[in-house]
This record gives sequence, C-alpha cells and structure tokens, in this order.
Amino acid sequence: MDEFALIRKHFRGLTPPGDDVVLGIGDDCALLVPPPGEELAVTTDTLAAGRHFEPKGKAEDLGWKSLAVSLSDLAAMGARPRWFVLALTLPPELAADPAWLEGFARGLKAMADQGCIALVGGDTTAGPLSVTITALGTIPAGRALRRSCAKPGDRVCVTGTLGDAALALQLGLATQCARFDPAREFLKNRLNRPTPRLVTGRELRGLAHAAVDLSDGLAGDLQHILEESWVGAEIETDKLPMSEAFERLSPAASRLPLQAAGGDDYELCVCLPPEALAEARRKLSQPLTEIGRITREPGLRWLDAQ
Amino acid sequence: MDEFALIRKHFRGLTPPGDDVVLGIGDDCALLVPPPGEELAVTTDTLAAGRHFEPKGKAEDLGWKSLAVSLSDLAAMGARPRWFVLALTLPPELAADPAWLEGFARGLKAMADQGCIALVGGDTTAGPLSVTITALGTIPAGRALRRSCAKPGDRVCVTGTLGDAALALQLGLATQCARFDPAREFLKNRLNRPTPRLVTGRELRGLAHAAVDLSDGLAGDLQHILEESWVGAEIETDKLPMSEAFERLSPAASRLPLQAAGGDDYELCVCLPPEALAEARRKLSQPLTEIGRITREPGLRWLDAQ
Repeated sequence: MDEFALIRKHFRGLTPPGDDVVLGIGDDCALLVPPPGEELAVTTDTLAAGRHFEPKGKAEDLGWKSLAVSLSDLAAMGARPRWFVLALTLPPELAADPAWLEGFARGLKAMADQGCIALVGGDTTAGPLSVTITALGTIPAGRALRRSCAKPGDRVCVTGTLGDAALALQLGLATQCARFDPAREFLKNRLNRPTPRLVTGRELRGLAHAAVDLSDGLAGDLQHILEESWVGAEIETDKLPMSEAFERLSPAASRLPLQAAGGDDYELCVCLPPEALAEARRKLSQPLTEIGRITREPGLRWLDAQ
Repeated sequence: MDEFALIRKHFRGLTPPGDDVVLGIGDDCALLVPPPGEELAVTTDTLAAGRHFEPKGKAEDLGWKSLAVSLSDLAAMGARPRWFVLALTLPPELAADPAWLEGFARGLKAMADQGCIALVGGDTTAGPLSVTITALGTIPAGRALRRSCAKPGDRVCVTGTLGDAALALQLGLATQCARFDPAREFLKNRLNRPTPRLVTGRELRGLAHAAVDLSDGLAGDLQHILEESWVGAEIETDKLPMSEAFERLSPAASRLPLQAAGGDDYELCVCLPPEALAEARRKLSQPLTEIGRITREPGLRWLDAQ
C-alpha cells in the first residue's frame, strides 16, 4: 500500500489552507501556528473494530465518529478545535476498496467541517481495522474547563439526552437499515454519528467549575470529576433527560442502567454554582438539564423520586 | 482493562512536571503552553506487531523504538521535542503482564529522557499489539527544515551509517541474543534502538536547504525531497557510509540494496549548498558524509566508482 498516494487521494479535501497551517500533509511533520496567549489542548483516541464499532458498519459513520469522539474531549475542556492527525490501520481488502475509503473520508470530512478542524498529517498501516486520531485545540490561557474544580453545592447538569446510543446498541441498530422508523433511525444516529458539544463547551468557560464528556457512561465519567475534585454527588434518577425515542423503545427495567452506565452519549456533564446555572440558561445556545448536585460527602448516590 | 489504572501505574514517571505542561494525563485533554513565537511540529506514527517489529521482541526495545521513530521526524524538521501522546493497543495477555508493561514503559522512558519529551496523554485498547505515538515539538517561526527547498548544486549528505538495521533484519538478529559478538550486537541495536538525530537536526537550521529522515530507505526518502523540490540527484554509491559491522557481515552483493533501499536507518539525509557544508563540518557535533549532489535534471541516478 502506498500510503502517500492513498492519503493524498482521499484526504486532501480535509486540509483546507488556513493561516494557522504553515505546512500540512507531505513532510516529516506538519507545521502549525498556535495563537498567541492560548494554551494547547491535546487528546488521542483509538476506535478498534469489534470493540468500539461494528466492523460491517458504514465507512462514512466510522469516519464521522472517529473524529467526533476526539472533538468531544476538546468540547469538554472548552477548547476550539484546530488540527488533527490520523493513524489508520486497514486490512488489505479495505485499503484496496475505493468506495470504502471514499466513504470514510466523506464522514471524516463532514465532522471536520462541522468542527472547523483541519487534517494535517497521518500514517497508514496494514492490519486489523482501527483508527487513532490525535486532535489539537486551543483555549485562552487559564480558561479551560477541568475535572478537578467541582465544589459542594454545585449543580450537576448534562447536555442533550442520555442512554440513546446504549439503547441502539442493545437493540442491535448499529448496522440495521431503520429508515422507516424515525425513532430507531434517531437512536442509530445517536450511536453512529454523535455530535460533540463544541459550542456549549466554549460557552461554559467562566461559568462551569468542572466538565467531562460522557463517553463511558454518566456513572463512570462523573466519578472522574468526583475523584479529581475530592467531592461527592447526589443524582436524581427521574431527572435524567430521555429522548422521545428512548422513552418509547426502552424497556422500563433497562432505563436506569442504560442512562447511568451506557456509554457513547458524547454529551457534556458539567458542575456549576446555582447563580452560574441561571446565567448559563440565559446564555447557552443549547439547554442544560439539572440532574443533581455536588456534595461535601464523598461518593455518588442515586436518588429516586421517593 | 482499567486504562486509567494501567496508565497511571506504569507511565507516571514519563510525565515530569514542567513549565510547559499545565495539565498532563488524567483529564479529557492535556493542556500545554507553546513557547511564544514558535511553530508547532506534529507527527504521528504507528508501529504494528509483525509488520514493524517482531511480536516476540523485547518490550523495552519496542517502547524505545515507538518513540524514536517519531522523534526522528521532529529531528528532520529541526524541531525541539516537547510532548507526546500514546495510543497503545494490547492483547489481553500483555495487558495482564506487569513485566511486559514495565519493560515497555522503561524503554519509552529511556527514549523520552534522551529526547527531553514528556508523555501528556494516552489511550489503551484491547486488540492486536500496536503503538501509535503523536509527538509535538516546537521551532522558532520560519526556521523549520523542509523537503521542498533543495537546490541544484546542493551537496547531499547523511548522518551516521546506512544499511545496519536492514542487515540486522536480514540476518534475523531482531530477537536473537547476540551478546558475545559485538558486531552482531551493534547491528541489532541499530535495528531495535535507533537514535534520532535531534541535536544535528537543530544544528542544521539555517544551514540545510532540505532534510528528511531515513525511515523507508535512502532511495525512497530522498525521492520525497526530489519530488517536493522539483530537482534530481546523483548519488555516488561508493560514498555511502558503512559501519565496521556492516562491512564485516554484509554479503558484497547485498550491500547496495541494503544501504539504498533498506529501511529503519533513522539517520538524516540533508541537502546543503557547498559553503554551508563547510560551515556545518565545523559546527556540527556529529559528522556528515557527503554522498552526492542535487541536479537540475530530474530523477535519481546512482553512480558507481567507475
């Protein structure tokens, strides 16, 4: 496989010329210009076939999601996406399949355009299908949202709805053609084409004390905030936001496990003081749902309506 | 596998606190401070078992080499290494083997210490063994060495010796215990523990017109310079630098193919005008060997002693 030819052919459209790219794909390194006075946010994620995605799934969805999960990490820091590099491991049958490569590049480009991020380098290897993306963003110095600054009394909030992707996985929708059922189609898209909350992440700078993106499930990800901030939390289970599709298609007994422990939501979970929450509700372009509060007492407690 | 526990346990020593790291491993992103007035150099490389290294090889060598290949790319741009992220895909038997993980981390740390680069983030995945590293370095704006600026009349030079790693591979030395034969041990180390030419790369800023690191073999890598610079080159085959071990152990008929087309040298190939070459010879801490010159006529020509 001639990696240079491959990358050039399919991924060129992903490298729009920009003032902040001195040199893109095609040298030993890319050369980039970080904006003065900003910090650099860096994250790396691997998606491996059979583990993070269905090997028979659409190449376009894989391209989209591979980048979306990294952008979600940038969103959780309040960073503005800038550049990414792509390490692609392809089995020979996919490397020789222009339709697959085109689909992958199309999905990747759609997400890159939405996130305003440029592909600046890559590496391709023959092997079992997997995608590793390292994404770089920038944030005015000292303004990043972290996991470690939640305070007792803070309200715990989430963007969007929880459990949709986990339900889609449970219902086996990942590779199903669900065109004629909008609810199933919605859930499938929540799994295959998550939307990183980039705008909300940036709007929350200066308002939220702590933030994390929900990739492994609310319980596990919120736990990171609690540990890093040395606090606890009470979450009211009946406040966890549900989509209509989730409400219609989830078995009642699975709801809490799917919403609390299902992964792949790619929503933000944030902790804000009450006064900032009021301001956030006025300012944010996307609604936040309050689901609980941070406590001095350590540990994560789930409260039901009673 | 609890990736957080794994990374924390074995890789903590790789993240020395530094003024340029606001936040290392343990949040959604690392937060870094690029030095004002410098450009950022970024490179990503995957090493996959059975393709780039012997799966039964030493974990320590793999840790070393995984980072060395990325540092070699930074060296070829004249960049100063700063930070790297590690995406590690491990089969369950290695993830559960503390000795393997310790060895890998030890080799990685030895190379990181030598390159003065800090590990700032990572991701671990279960799957067939492979390592993807994205390395970031910085360079004063406008001073990077590129592939695209070689000029007719430039001298083509290389650091170190060529063909050692390819000969080691041919002789099956990658995983052999060759302790009692210094020549074989030398060749094996050239394959398993390459030394990126970081100091030389930085010293060549302002002297060399173009540079590339030799990872795929002289012929292929020099070709990148020729294409990007729209020039050709004549290389004198009897000037290609040979190590004593290579001279002793390589079959005469294999020498040229090993030196010209063997990969994994991780030396630098640079193009400089004659006057800069004289200055480089005085200033550089490592010798350069002149092997040919850049021509207006396109194409790569090999000249033998006659």
